[in-house]
Amino acid sequence: MDSLERVRTSFAKQGLMTTLGAKLGAISPGAVEIILIPSPAISQQHGFVHAGAVSSIADSAVGYASLSLVPSGTSILTAEFKINLVAPAVGERIIARGRVIKPGRTLTLAQTDVFAQSKGQEKLIAVLTATMMSIEGREGIED
Amino acid sequence: MDSLERVRTSFAKQGLMTTLGAKLGAISPGAVEIILIPSPAISQQHGFVHAGAVSSIADSAVGYASLSLVPSGTSILTAEFKINLVAPAVGERIIARGRVIKPGRTLTLAQTDVFAQSKGQEKLIAVLTATMMSIEGREGIED
Amino acid sequence: MDSLERVRTSFAKQGLMTTLGAKLGAISPGAVEIILIPSPAISQQHGFVHAGAVSSIADSAVGYASLSLVPSGTSILTAEFKINLVAPAVGERIIARGRVIKPGRTLTLAQTDVFAQSKGQEKLIAVLTATMMSIEGREGIED
Amino acid sequence: MDSLERVRTSFAKQGLMTTLGAKLGAISPGAVEIILIPSPAISQQHGFVHAGAVSSIADSAVGYASLSLVPSGTSILTAEFKINLVAPAVGERIIARGRVIKPGRTLTLAQTDVFAQSKGQEKLIAVLTATMMSIEGREGIED
Repeated sequence: MDSLERVRTSFAKQGLMTTLGAKLGAISPGAVEIILIPSPAISQQHGFVHAGAVSSIADSAVGYASLSLVPSGTSILTAEFKINLVAPAVGERIIARGRVIKPGRTLTLAQTDVFAQSKGQEKLIAVLTATMMSIEGREGIED
Repeated sequence: MDSLERVRTSFAKQGLMTTLGAKLGAISPGAVEIILIPSPAISQQHGFVHAGAVSSIADSAVGYASLSLVPSGTSILTAEFKINLVAPAVGERIIARGRVIKPGRTLTLAQTDVFAQSKGQEKLIAVLTATMMSIEGREGIED
Repeated sequence: MDSLERVRTSFAKQGLMTTLGAKLGAISPGAVEIILIPSPAISQQHGFVHAGAVSSIADSAVGYASLSLVPSGTSILTAEFKINLVAPAVGERIIARGRVIKPGRTLTLAQTDVFAQSKGQEKLIAVLTATMMSIEGREGIED
Repeated sequence: MDSLERVRTSFAKQGLMTTLGAKLGAISPGAVEIILIPSPAISQQHGFVHAGAVSSIADSAVGYASLSLVPSGTSILTAEFKINLVAPAVGERIIARGRVIKPGRTLTLAQTDVFAQSKGQEKLIAVLTATMMSIEGREGIED
């Protein structure tokens, strides 16, 4: 299974992505898009998409961007992320574009820019930076 | 409506919390608990609770801890948060305990410690620190 | 005084920059470089430039990138920053390139990429993202 | 050399701490204080202690809190930190209190609370959370 196929297979196992209605967009080595359609089921109290839902797709995007670059048998866990939320998450689609900034043997730095799309326009709504950790041969952790 | 009542009413409007199956736990001025029951619907690919679901309840917990301290008519938005994930989110219950560290007129610093409970034991699994922003009189933003 | 002149004047008042031996590099609206020459006076215990010194120039870089975009009479304070340190800070020069990602009335998101330069090559060593806060008319705070 | 002695010896090798005039305060396994005396040499443009100087002692405090818990031969590097600056750094003394929250084999989560002391009172001015990485047997990295 090549690395992009591994991303698709692993993504399909993330129950949360299905629950949120999130879909994979374009994927390439080191870069993964995840798309979310705003709806009341993923909202916060003002009707915007909840910061937690935005964070969920932004985190998965860096996770899979990182996974796409590691050898088969190596898994990826998020050690930490920070997300800055710069505009309300409203629009026709929310799109998280994750990419690896600096791959490393143990730790990888990755970043997701999240955009809201409306009427053919894109607006930056959030930026996430994350430390991803590579795990090898730990029982129960396999992508 | 008093401030804790306001927290309960606003929480009930967060569609994402219902979708994730999250419930309010103990609440008091400046401190709010949110509880999540692990299930495949909120999992990542290894079967742990997804970091995004953990982040979602941890973010809502600081949001409501902050909201419980501001006057009626003031709303709260998350400007940014960082979450450090220190152990897999597995167990009978995941409990996020948010509290205000330093309230401010415009910006409030708040922190959530997230624990996994199993067999009567608690284990720290994540720590989130957040900058919450107070908003007054902005159209469409009301708690 | 135009906004870039204001950056230069304010930078000259930062005692810490003088103490560290940091210099302004290229500046333009929304983008500011700060340069540091590695020496034992700014080292940590292994002889690398201390993460605190790297953070200091990276923080000043986003502060001045932000200041260059606000009207005279408005000051800028750092509300928070995260820095990811991805490689040891060693080389002939350390250069922090700060830029505004999303300006806002109250909060501005800005990012600094920090590079180590050696033998004509640049290597990314750190990435900082920051929330900058605009302050108007607060006594004792003037740029 | 016991672990607290190792902290003192390594601290003395941090040129930046000497340059800033920082001193070790109370130290115990997993907890380290560092103290800074405000002066123009470490200021930003408004006369407060620069966020970079505050970050420097806060980062060293978690570094040494972490180092105090690892076996001899293991070194500690900062992988990332976030600092929230909640009040201006002014006063007679700035004191950073670092402590380990969750030690780990590879990654340790640690936190520093920073206080300004004036007239016998303490005020919280900043909170830093950091991911510290344990390094063994890497050339040139020894505490």
